[in-house]
Amino acid sequence: MKTLYKFLVLLLLGYRQLAFAQNGIVVFQSDFGLKDGAVSAMKGVAMGVSPNLKLFDLTHEIPAYDIWEAAYRLYQTVPYYPAGTVFVSVCDPGVGTDRHSVVLLTKTGHYIVTPDNGTLTLIADKLGIQEVREIDEAVNRLTNSNESYTFHGRDVYAYTAARLASRTITFQQVGNTVRRTVVSLPYQKADYANGVLQGNIPILDVQYGNVWTNIPKAMLEKLGVKSGDSVRVKILHQNKTIYDKAVRMVNTFGEAAVGDDVAYINSLLNFSVAVNQGNFSDKYKVFSGADWTIVLSKQ
Amino acid sequence: MKTLYKFLVLLLLGYRQLAFAQNGIVVFQSDFGLKDGAVSAMKGVAMGVSPNLKLFDLTHEIPAYDIWEAAYRLYQTVPYYPAGTVFVSVCDPGVGTDRHSVVLLTKTGHYIVTPDNGTLTLIADKLGIQEVREIDEAVNRLTNSNESYTFHGRDVYAYTAARLASRTITFQQVGNTVRRTVVSLPYQKADYANGVLQGNIPILDVQYGNVWTNIPKAMLEKLGVKSGDSVRVKILHQNKTIYDKAVRMVNTFGEAAVGDDVAYINSLLNFSVAVNQGNFSDKYKVFSGADWTIVLSKQ
Amino acid sequence: MKTLYKFLVLLLLGYRQLAFAQNGIVVFQSDFGLKDGAVSAMKGVAMGVSPNLKLFDLTHEIPAYDIWEAAYRLYQTVPYYPAGTVFVSVCDPGVGTDRHSVVLLTKTGHYIVTPDNGTLTLIADKLGIQEVREIDEAVNRLTNSNESYTFHGRDVYAYTAARLASRTITFQQVGNTVRRTVVSLPYQKADYANGVLQGNIPILDVQYGNVWTNIPKAMLEKLGVKSGDSVRVKILHQNKTIYDKAVRMVNTFGEAAVGDDVAYINSLLNFSVAVNQGNFSDKYKVFSGADWTIVLSKQ
Repeated sequence: MKTLYKFLVLLLLGYRQLAFAQNGIVVFQSDFGLKDGAVSAMKGVAMGVSPNLKLFDLTHEIPAYDIWEAAYRLYQTVPYYPAGTVFVSVCDPGVGTDRHSVVLLTKTGHYIVTPDNGTLTLIADKLGIQEVREIDEAVNRLTNSNESYTFHGRDVYAYTAARLASRTITFQQVGNTVRRTVVSLPYQKADYANGVLQGNIPILDVQYGNVWTNIPKAMLEKLGVKSGDSVRVKILHQNKTIYDKAVRMVNTFGEAAVGDDVAYINSLLNFSVAVNQGNFSDKYKVFSGADWTIVLSKQ
Repeated sequence: MKTLYKFLVLLLLGYRQLAFAQNGIVVFQSDFGLKDGAVSAMKGVAMGVSPNLKLFDLTHEIPAYDIWEAAYRLYQTVPYYPAGTVFVSVCDPGVGTDRHSVVLLTKTGHYIVTPDNGTLTLIADKLGIQEVREIDEAVNRLTNSNESYTFHGRDVYAYTAARLASRTITFQQVGNTVRRTVVSLPYQKADYANGVLQGNIPILDVQYGNVWTNIPKAMLEKLGVKSGDSVRVKILHQNKTIYDKAVRMVNTFGEAAVGDDVAYINSLLNFSVAVNQGNFSDKYKVFSGADWTIVLSKQ
Repeated sequence: MKTLYKFLVLLLLGYRQLAFAQNGIVVFQSDFGLKDGAVSAMKGVAMGVSPNLKLFDLTHEIPAYDIWEAAYRLYQTVPYYPAGTVFVSVCDPGVGTDRHSVVLLTKTGHYIVTPDNGTLTLIADKLGIQEVREIDEAVNRLTNSNESYTFHGRDVYAYTAARLASRTITFQQVGNTVRRTVVSLPYQKADYANGVLQGNIPILDVQYGNVWTNIPKAMLEKLGVKSGDSVRVKILHQNKTIYDKAVRMVNTFGEAAVGDDVAYINSLLNFSVAVNQGNFSDKYKVFSGADWTIVLSKQ
């Protein structure tokens, strides 16, 4: 009986191990831009660890030092990679200070290697924290890189991610210090009361100038707004009204005329507004950040 | 005898199958830009289908909603990949409307997964249409993506391309609806009459400001202009002359002084004009589009 | 005895062969930008040579025709890839002239395929020249590309690099002409005399606006400046003083307040100055080039 029990435990552990097993994929994000060799040097280090790794980019156009945007891009992208993928995110204005270098393992089996400076805020909330390990730089640092203090992305994060992804080290060998929390930036959540939805603009859909909010589809449903209905959209900046219109809710842009303001559910299933084939942000001077508020009510 | 015939037919079919067999390469093009996680999410979906795929980019800097430029970049690039490569092109202003989602198989064995909105205009003309299949989204759609209406690039195109490229599905399993036509944008072709060549500027060589035309090398030869000769180049915008000069035809930029206007055959074997190590477009305010005309005659 | 000697020589040769054996990795650099299909076409050609190659980018945002920056980005990046990696660098304002097309094998086992126009200046100095072979274009040129004169990046360099990296050809088969020199751009080296260090600004850390110099850490040590000390930094443009301040030397940005001017050792172990989380170059109008001088002395 005890043997059977042991066997079942081992099976379960084996299954967990399997579910979270690193798959050889490494995805890089940074605020380095692509104009110099910094991103490429990180990939070179990874290839030096194991030429069998598969290397991808999330984005390297995070605005310099913008930890919030780094956090948002992880939230937008990580879930679309298979479990076992290792992410590296380097937006690190405090490089070399006492902010910790960590690897987060999410409950979904994704690994994120990063300075723990708020970058993990959203992904930890969305995917859940399985375990956080602090990188032991005594063992997880590129050979002969000890004189370099300002490029942890190359010397520590890319190196550790590559070793983890290629199973050169286990997750345990990342480092001994273990916790279940990460540094979290304060951020607003959407709220519903008395037929009014209040939310925030955490980020823009930068390429098209669409305005993304933090109001999830499920909450919008409380308002009883369906595709084809109009919704009253009020956008405020520091409590000053910037935009106030009834906007038609569409499933897709094809339902509206070119140039129309439309409301829709975006690819992350949050409420958004756009000018069809235009740029809402440019047209109405609406941007993102903690001081931008959006208020919705049924028309 | 009948057996031999059968054998030969099978051999031929087998050969065709082989020639067009997907090679595991997927190449992505879009107007998404690289500032957020959209392109990366598409690649994550592909890795979720098969980690053995090889993923590349064509460009993601197609100007937003510019289907013509998407068509041109495919024409410029697809032939340089081996047969069996699967391309994804997502410039999709009409996402969610009744434009069809298709996969084109060219006569050269290249697959292109895209909304059929004109994106295929040039590649279909250049490489020929072997077969077009409409994507059956009932089966070829990322699991649990049914609530998302605005990111077919991730939910349908990347997913279908990855399944096709990895041979998870056959070309037949893309969908049953089959035709041999695609939606085609009207475009101008160059014309020769009485010693005068008339063409158009379909696109700029954006990085250098060189002006590319739709006049093929073979047609230029009718004019009897050889390397070293001068050619009279007249450029008109909406019938107004913007540029009118005798320009020396060179094989390569090295033959001209820095700053000289030169005429040459570009990497797609079309007639082009440039300022050597300068920017012709900026200098003479010459751009591209249907209302730009170029007229050549022998000096 | 003779047999033993022979054996040892063969062993040594074998080792050298092994050490320098191509590893299937190709890294591309150019001034093409990423807005059209040029970079992608090069990768397509490489995939046509061998689908087993691993293709990466260094950068494609080298300013048009800027050979010096191409040289610098190689110097910044090449050493971080494993020996046996093949690099392609195409910044080629003289495409089609009599500048030679070469492959440099460095003493560290890195291959660089490029027009020999100065691009190899820094990497040859830093890593040493093992051998330079001129590309024999009669055999190392994409099939059917003979009519194209202006895109050697695709037709010659990417093709040759892919053949070399995939061991389709040996290094010897690149071409017969062998030498041990490359075309070198003149450049300044830092100098120490009587307690004063004089150097140059070869390049900016473009993403952040930090100013990188050619003064190595080892030379700075002659000045006796340690982390925490102040150093007098004078920056001149064409002998006119643009900046003159005592700046605190830090190991990492985290030691300074946001907005402080700081001096530090960068990721290439050279002396640099920055505004912490700001843009030094923008703030003080300091740029890079041969006419920028930096003078350091102990405060």
